[in-house]
Amino acid sequence: MLPDDANIMGNVHGGIILKMIEEAGGIVGTRHCNTQSGDRCLAALVRVEKTEFLSPVFIGEVVHVSADITYASKHSLEVQVKVMAENILTGSKKLANKAALWYVPCSLQNVEKIMEVPPIKYVSAEQEEEGRKRYEAQKTERQETKARIEEVMPPPPNAERHTVGFSQSSLIHLVGPSDCTLHDYVHGGTTMKLMDEVAGIVAARHCNTNIVTASVDAINFHRKIKKGCVVTVTGRLTFVSNRSMEIEVLVDAASLVEKEKGKYRAVSAFFTFISLDKDNKPLPVPPLKIEGEEEQRRSDEGKARYLQSKAKREAEKGRQQ
Amino acid sequence: MLPDDANIMGNVHGGIILKMIEEAGGIVGTRHCNTQSGDRCLAALVRVEKTEFLSPVFIGEVVHVSADITYASKHSLEVQVKVMAENILTGSKKLANKAALWYVPCSLQNVEKIMEVPPIKYVSAEQEEEGRKRYEAQKTERQETKARIEEVMPPPPNAERHTVGFSQSSLIHLVGPSDCTLHDYVHGGTTMKLMDEVAGIVAARHCNTNIVTASVDAINFHRKIKKGCVVTVTGRLTFVSNRSMEIEVLVDAASLVEKEKGKYRAVSAFFTFISLDKDNKPLPVPPLKIEGEEEQRRSDEGKARYLQSKAKREAEKGRQQ
Amino acid sequence: MLPDDANIMGNVHGGIILKMIEEAGGIVGTRHCNTQSGDRCLAALVRVEKTEFLSPVFIGEVVHVSADITYASKHSLEVQVKVMAENILTGSKKLANKAALWYVPCSLQNVEKIMEVPPIKYVSAEQEEEGRKRYEAQKTERQETKARIEEVMPPPPNAERHTVGFSQSSLIHLVGPSDCTLHDYVHGGTTMKLMDEVAGIVAARHCNTNIVTASVDAINFHRKIKKGCVVTVTGRLTFVSNRSMEIEVLVDAASLVEKEKGKYRAVSAFFTFISLDKDNKPLPVPPLKIEGEEEQRRSDEGKARYLQSKAKREAEKGRQQ
Repeated sequence: MLPDDANIMGNVHGGIILKMIEEAGGIVGTRHCNTQSGDRCLAALVRVEKTEFLSPVFIGEVVHVSADITYASKHSLEVQVKVMAENILTGSKKLANKAALWYVPCSLQNVEKIMEVPPIKYVSAEQEEEGRKRYEAQKTERQETKARIEEVMPPPPNAERHTVGFSQSSLIHLVGPSDCTLHDYVHGGTTMKLMDEVAGIVAARHCNTNIVTASVDAINFHRKIKKGCVVTVTGRLTFVSNRSMEIEVLVDAASLVEKEKGKYRAVSAFFTFISLDKDNKPLPVPPLKIEGEEEQRRSDEGKARYLQSKAKREAEKGRQQ
Repeated sequence: MLPDDANIMGNVHGGIILKMIEEAGGIVGTRHCNTQSGDRCLAALVRVEKTEFLSPVFIGEVVHVSADITYASKHSLEVQVKVMAENILTGSKKLANKAALWYVPCSLQNVEKIMEVPPIKYVSAEQEEEGRKRYEAQKTERQETKARIEEVMPPPPNAERHTVGFSQSSLIHLVGPSDCTLHDYVHGGTTMKLMDEVAGIVAARHCNTNIVTASVDAINFHRKIKKGCVVTVTGRLTFVSNRSMEIEVLVDAASLVEKEKGKYRAVSAFFTFISLDKDNKPLPVPPLKIEGEEEQRRSDEGKARYLQSKAKREAEKGRQQ
Repeated sequence: MLPDDANIMGNVHGGIILKMIEEAGGIVGTRHCNTQSGDRCLAALVRVEKTEFLSPVFIGEVVHVSADITYASKHSLEVQVKVMAENILTGSKKLANKAALWYVPCSLQNVEKIMEVPPIKYVSAEQEEEGRKRYEAQKTERQETKARIEEVMPPPPNAERHTVGFSQSSLIHLVGPSDCTLHDYVHGGTTMKLMDEVAGIVAARHCNTNIVTASVDAINFHRKIKKGCVVTVTGRLTFVSNRSMEIEVLVDAASLVEKEKGKYRAVSAFFTFISLDKDNKPLPVPPLKIEGEEEQRRSDEGKARYLQSKAKREAEKGRQQ
């Protein structure tokens, strides 16, 4: 990990980790889907399951990313990725992240054509059955989740500190060759990196401290983004607890040269950030000043997600004891 | 020049050229200012004179940047930079850019302390006298140009095509280590690259074609930007002629962690872009729909700049014939 | 040199220097080979002679790379490259590296077609004769060196400290557009940068200190690597002396989508690293625990190379006195 991968406190950005996770997943997925005859294809990311950042990674550490295919349906496959961070000076290793990603094989001849996935071998019938359950669960969720098409309003010019408008941030990015796969569509990992970047700026503007990504909600990739598009990534706070901030991030894409295609919502997700002091201990987060019904509704929904994942974490802890 | 340095038509971004120009200027300036005893120092960019992009540069070409110190006052120095693009396959070379930059030596011990510049030798008394005139002219201009402190208003949500609001664009960038000099301030060239990026997106949104930087007005660097700041770069059209677009670009900086320092205007400048067809021939530009008094005033000022530089170009042509 | 070019102690990675050397060599070689009629062509790297890193380079230094064509045979040419590092604050300059590279001109129309090299002028008959000797020597060596096709075994899961398995490391890299030349093959310099990166991680794992590249053995580029390939770079210790570590680095490439083409050994080389304390003074290196006959054989071969190059260095010293 290099200085540019990290913030000024030396914490590697969550977006850099997400980008590496997706790169590993894409390689493993593409390699598997080409072990059969027929059109050559690329594994395109369609969904990342909710993922937690378990330990911070620092500049100078060596990061190991390993990826395994854990389930294959007819047209999609699940890749599980593990990220270990190693301090090569002390020899210590820690688990930084575990993630599950879903891919769909797209033909290189015709990107709209979904190919079949070669079957994989399971260690046991139980393993296959569990994979099938995860597959069904995400399929249902993906069908339920429609792209949030709500227009993002620009923040008022002189927003008061600690309001939603005060920290709302947008960036634009012109998609270049290095952002893209072999068929000239943006890598899912590149999009996640930009999303984490904007979310991080929103969080830092709200609390003016060192902030790090704690978790990312399940992300569905509704539509692909092509080379030459301009991507607008906007982040805004939805809910703040004592120790965490939830930020909604919306990704809109528009072709610069094909104006008739218009602007469309490509991805949206919720990122959770925490604030850290100099010794990497969590700090309290300033409360969020809610203005208007819309912000209240989004905050209530965020609180529900917060309580649900808190309950889940505690249930898991109970089971482990 | 690599694919990442260029747009999808293969034209290298003007911002990449500006960044290389400033890098060369900074090296030559810093080297010269350290040829004396006293504190070690860095040459900090304070002004770039108006510069024209004479020929487009393409992916695969080798770019040669040469820089010479052409004038030294007590506390500042002028560096003239020439950019040649060479096609190493055909052997052809062309002049891509000529620029003049002003630097001030800042002590590495105390960045606020301006050092003295060692004198240079001139070929002739005329050469020195011409340099002195350029020095006085830019000094007067810098004193006259105050930072435009006018707040940038966000565009209306559903702006009509070809209005100012329709193409107005902003990006945010978190300043990382690679953006900075040895004393942790942003390289002037990095700032110019971001400015060109935003201006290019504004221009492409207005005319939906391949666009390239034609020229950049004199840029004054009012205030320095430190590592760890968030930079907001906003571009908006001011004036459109038959064949060119003038875009005002405003750079605001704010420290993420030192909230008391607030947001400040660091740089502002006017970029001129032209629209090209597939054979790199200029295309007509759609007229700009002006709304309100403010936009009319900015357009009138832009038109005055446009006519002035047109008159100047024709006067130069006349002189050459 | 920027922060991202260096390790956490500020020493610029040897791989960054190697990449710049190859970039300069490729430009000079390609330019020369196109000074004749016929197909346009690119100079493709086929071999780098053994090169020593004479002084460390630090962040903030300005690096000057100069390249000259020193010999031309019918189908190949030798480029000698010199790297000077300049501290622009103190004005001091030092020789950082001297290297000799061999290129072959490949047609841009058909990458398999080797073009003829235009003749060069020699200052003297002796100069030409010396070049011819170097040409014959490397030709013989290249013919003798077959690609090491031995499979790399993964290290045992719980390897003991200071064994070969403990520090063995691999990275995979998906070849993107910025890694490639105009005909979509990986720059030799990019491959060497990845090799140095892996070798550096192996060395740091073995001795847990600040390490730097001391030298690189002659590298032969057996086969080209194309855009879209996945490259696996593996490094393992072969021999450790009191003050140095020799690391064998193997580069395997495989197309992600054309599986029938299989995985192939593209490059292999030996890197020598030394361990430094805070004042950049050499430190003793922990002895290597050899396990099994294969490791013993590789260590014996490494020792022979070590003794040979030590004898050569001493002979040169003797001649200079």
